Amino acid sequence: MLSTTTSRRVLASAHRQTPKMTSFASALTSTLFTSLHRQMHSSDEPRDPAYRVLTNERMNKHVLEAQYAVRGAIPLRAEELREQLEEKGKDAGLPFDTVVNCNIGNPQQLDQKPLTFLRQVSALTEYPDLLDHPSTSSIFPSDAIERARSLLKEIGSVGAYSHSMGVPAIRKRVAQFIENRDGHPSSPGKIYLTAGASTGVSNILQILISSPLDGVLIPIPQYPLYTAALALNAARAVPYYLEESADWGLDVENLKANLEKARHEGTVIKAMVVINPGNPTGNCLSSENMQDIIKLCYEEKLVLLADEVYQSNVYGDARPFVSFKKALKDMGAPYADNVELVSFHSISKGQSGECGRRGGYFELCNFHPEAEEQVYKLASIQLCPSLGGQIGVDILCTPPKEGDESYPLWKEEVSGIARTLKERSEILVKAFRELEGVTCNDAEGAMYLFPTITIPPKAIAAAKAAGQAPDAYYSLKLLEGTGICVVPGSGFGQAPGTWHFRTTFLAPGTEDYVRRLKKFHEDFMREYS
Amino acid sequence: MLSTTTSRRVLASAHRQTPKMTSFASALTSTLFTSLHRQMHSSDEPRDPAYRVLTNERMNKHVLEAQYAVRGAIPLRAEELREQLEEKGKDAGLPFDTVVNCNIGNPQQLDQKPLTFLRQVSALTEYPDLLDHPSTSSIFPSDAIERARSLLKEIGSVGAYSHSMGVPAIRKRVAQFIENRDGHPSSPGKIYLTAGASTGVSNILQILISSPLDGVLIPIPQYPLYTAALALNAARAVPYYLEESADWGLDVENLKANLEKARHEGTVIKAMVVINPGNPTGNCLSSENMQDIIKLCYEEKLVLLADEVYQSNVYGDARPFVSFKKALKDMGAPYADNVELVSFHSISKGQSGECGRRGGYFELCNFHPEAEEQVYKLASIQLCPSLGGQIGVDILCTPPKEGDESYPLWKEEVSGIARTLKERSEILVKAFRELEGVTCNDAEGAMYLFPTITIPPKAIAAAKAAGQAPDAYYSLKLLEGTGICVVPGSGFGQAPGTWHFRTTFLAPGTEDYVRRLKKFHEDFMREYS
Repeated sequence: MLSTTTSRRVLASAHRQTPKMTSFASALTSTLFTSLHRQMHSSDEPRDPAYRVLTNERMNKHVLEAQYAVRGAIPLRAEELREQLEEKGKDAGLPFDTVVNCNIGNPQQLDQKPLTFLRQVSALTEYPDLLDHPSTSSIFPSDAIERARSLLKEIGSVGAYSHSMGVPAIRKRVAQFIENRDGHPSSPGKIYLTAGASTGVSNILQILISSPLDGVLIPIPQYPLYTAALALNAARAVPYYLEESADWGLDVENLKANLEKARHEGTVIKAMVVINPGNPTGNCLSSENMQDIIKLCYEEKLVLLADEVYQSNVYGDARPFVSFKKALKDMGAPYADNVELVSFHSISKGQSGECGRRGGYFELCNFHPEAEEQVYKLASIQLCPSLGGQIGVDILCTPPKEGDESYPLWKEEVSGIARTLKERSEILVKAFRELEGVTCNDAEGAMYLFPTITIPPKAIAAAKAAGQAPDAYYSLKLLEGTGICVVPGSGFGQAPGTWHFRTTFLAPGTEDYVRRLKKFHEDFMREYS
Repeated sequence: MLSTTTSRRVLASAHRQTPKMTSFASALTSTLFTSLHRQMHSSDEPRDPAYRVLTNERMNKHVLEAQYAVRGAIPLRAEELREQLEEKGKDAGLPFDTVVNCNIGNPQQLDQKPLTFLRQVSALTEYPDLLDHPSTSSIFPSDAIERARSLLKEIGSVGAYSHSMGVPAIRKRVAQFIENRDGHPSSPGKIYLTAGASTGVSNILQILISSPLDGVLIPIPQYPLYTAALALNAARAVPYYLEESADWGLDVENLKANLEKARHEGTVIKAMVVINPGNPTGNCLSSENMQDIIKLCYEEKLVLLADEVYQSNVYGDARPFVSFKKALKDMGAPYADNVELVSFHSISKGQSGECGRRGGYFELCNFHPEAEEQVYKLASIQLCPSLGGQIGVDILCTPPKEGDESYPLWKEEVSGIARTLKERSEILVKAFRELEGVTCNDAEGAMYLFPTITIPPKAIAAAKAAGQAPDAYYSLKLLEGTGICVVPGSGFGQAPGTWHFRTTFLAPGTEDYVRRLKKFHEDFMREYS
């Protein structure tokens, strides 16, 4: 196990690395990560290390450069603490009795119960013998039985590979879902089921990038999958800043300036990523912002990648979710039939929260047939997404409807989850705002808050002395002092000179969270005032 | 729908492309694929094609170059025929009433029934409320209930992300399985659960390749995932030939000569891929071959990638499965603790045949901690494999044991599947050998046969005139005439001047298969004699 002293030493050494866009925290993440990972996994050190073929010098440098803070150094340290508590309980001598993983949007790891209908249908498709058992009709509602029967007819066995794009009948229902949502036609031939949204994003970026000069516009702060996937594809991340003071909206003029600057540096900008509702910001974009983005993509010839995995996590009435597909098609010529758009959705988030099934889809709009062929080919090399994930997508897109036996329970579960998350976000926002030097926007959507923390000069100096970014210093102290695991803002990117952390508001026991945080923050501010 | 005339035109135009290692068939595959894919999916051609950002000129050229014949042109044509039969039945005017997909090892698409215990445990973990239902004990055996309970305790919810390497408790049992199999220690910290073996292979190759000069030794014939993944990573595939006349074993001297030749051409050889039991060859390597390979990897400093997904598909007693881990560790110094080995396994093959769950694992041996960190990081960016797949791996590695309630049924199912496959392979081999100009090795393992077909000069001329590789010409005619879908040898690579096809022996109705094939082959030989 890594002692706090060791982590400090590791963190200190991280300071001597060159800072990049995500600055200190990346270096910190990388070095602390290295150290922790070795301690956790290297039971058999090589006898003859000089012999090894695969060392840092000889590996893919793009893999070496990629960073993914959401599962990086601080979460690894959290895992270590959790193991200590499991093994030793109170004897671990830690000032808390549970580790709360607020670093990742993993609803069912925390409190969120799975939607019953989805699980009933899944159980029946897993073990079709159940369908013929005399007790089944007393255990399962009739619509779950019917759905399982019809899915099995379409799929055959959930143990067989499906079409690489996903089961055709499921893609038909996804297209219907999109049509109902947007009021514009959608075709199953443009829909690809995926193993969560991440696989889809990675595949599209892999196809897009054809030279190390290629760049993609990404929001800052961003979900680090994007910088990681761009690093893996040896491409440039071109940042555009979301404005915290404007509810994390974007300033298109500033965006254009960044784009021009990148072009001056020789970057060929191929695409733009938008995350709506936002991660880590929790904002929903205004219609005006959306139209500006579409116009920009048209004018600048950019493929638009719309990460819309939080589309059903919207908490206010002011800005209901509008898909980029709808915004695009509503705008008419010359945009509607020209801008190349990929829209990503997932069963991992929203009220289904089924991260562990690995299900999702993307829809292609206005893609050239040549590009569609490559998308298909990549999918075929990967064979197919898991059938469990595909069934999850089916139920996400075609839940029980009014009049069905399962409808009342489904409705109650979905509303209950939405209500709980909204309540938890409000309690947390209120608590953050009461803390000295902390500001926090409301969560309009998604499942995260991204508060600003004003870190006192003394703490900044202490962080610097320890070789850490101030927000990483704060987050690590928060973890060591309370068991609450968050991700420092530098893992997502943030405006220079500002410090944040991202926390989910998924965890149960919000009052306990607030109590731990409040005490920690007051102590921290007192210590460094 | 694409008419036969159109396919011929497409196939003809393919001839004008530059032949590469996999020669005609790649070009054929690519062009026919393009045409079919467009016809199937391009309902909305762009209004202003000049506008598109993503065209062949502007996409990742490595993606464009990748080929994957197993799901390529001929299988796409088979899909088209299947749809015609579904829509029109006899009115489709086809000379067969079913399409038989022998192009891909997809057991449950054909006849293979899922293993009951695996599905029972899966159903219970999907819907844990079942565990508390009064009827459950009358529906499910006690050991399935117990296993589900203990898995849920370890996992939490199957809807939550797990550790990126996979659930720790499952990895412990995988390590135990490996120890029992090999008689050498294995550690859960070196085991990564994956979404089938393919993801693991792709990740390892991505980490390995650091320059376009890098090359990996792959067997010819090979499973085309390897050439596809190497193409995607802009690396060189360095072929070594398996010798059909020596039961598809390998000649190490020939291998060394190929390696030297590639080095002369500037290739930096980083790794060697071995598929054992073989795909598409169905062979099992001799111990002598395995030791030679390990020595070569040691001497030449190559990482050894052992694709062992068919380890439980072994049909003879002469060459029982021996893992490369065991072979390596049995050899002692200087090999045992030095050669970097990755061994891949999967739930998609063997008697479980659960392709649709996407489950598998790999074990790292002798990896440098620096390399392990990168393997972990790539896994973490991909979040985690599906929990359904992970549970599949758990049951693969820890099936019911003697004395358990489910043991007798499990034993019966597993033996039944093994017996059926052996029988089918024998019937097919016998039938192939009775055909004029066809030779075929016995299947020692895996689920494929790779017969040689001696194609008469007239047919070669006709193929040439049609712009097709002779084996592709034969395979396409076989499909159009009988509904049997196989993959031409050129999709896997073969010794120059020889022609093959790969067929699974998974399909039920082997007699019917033989009858169709025999009649087709006789007609073909008569036509071109």
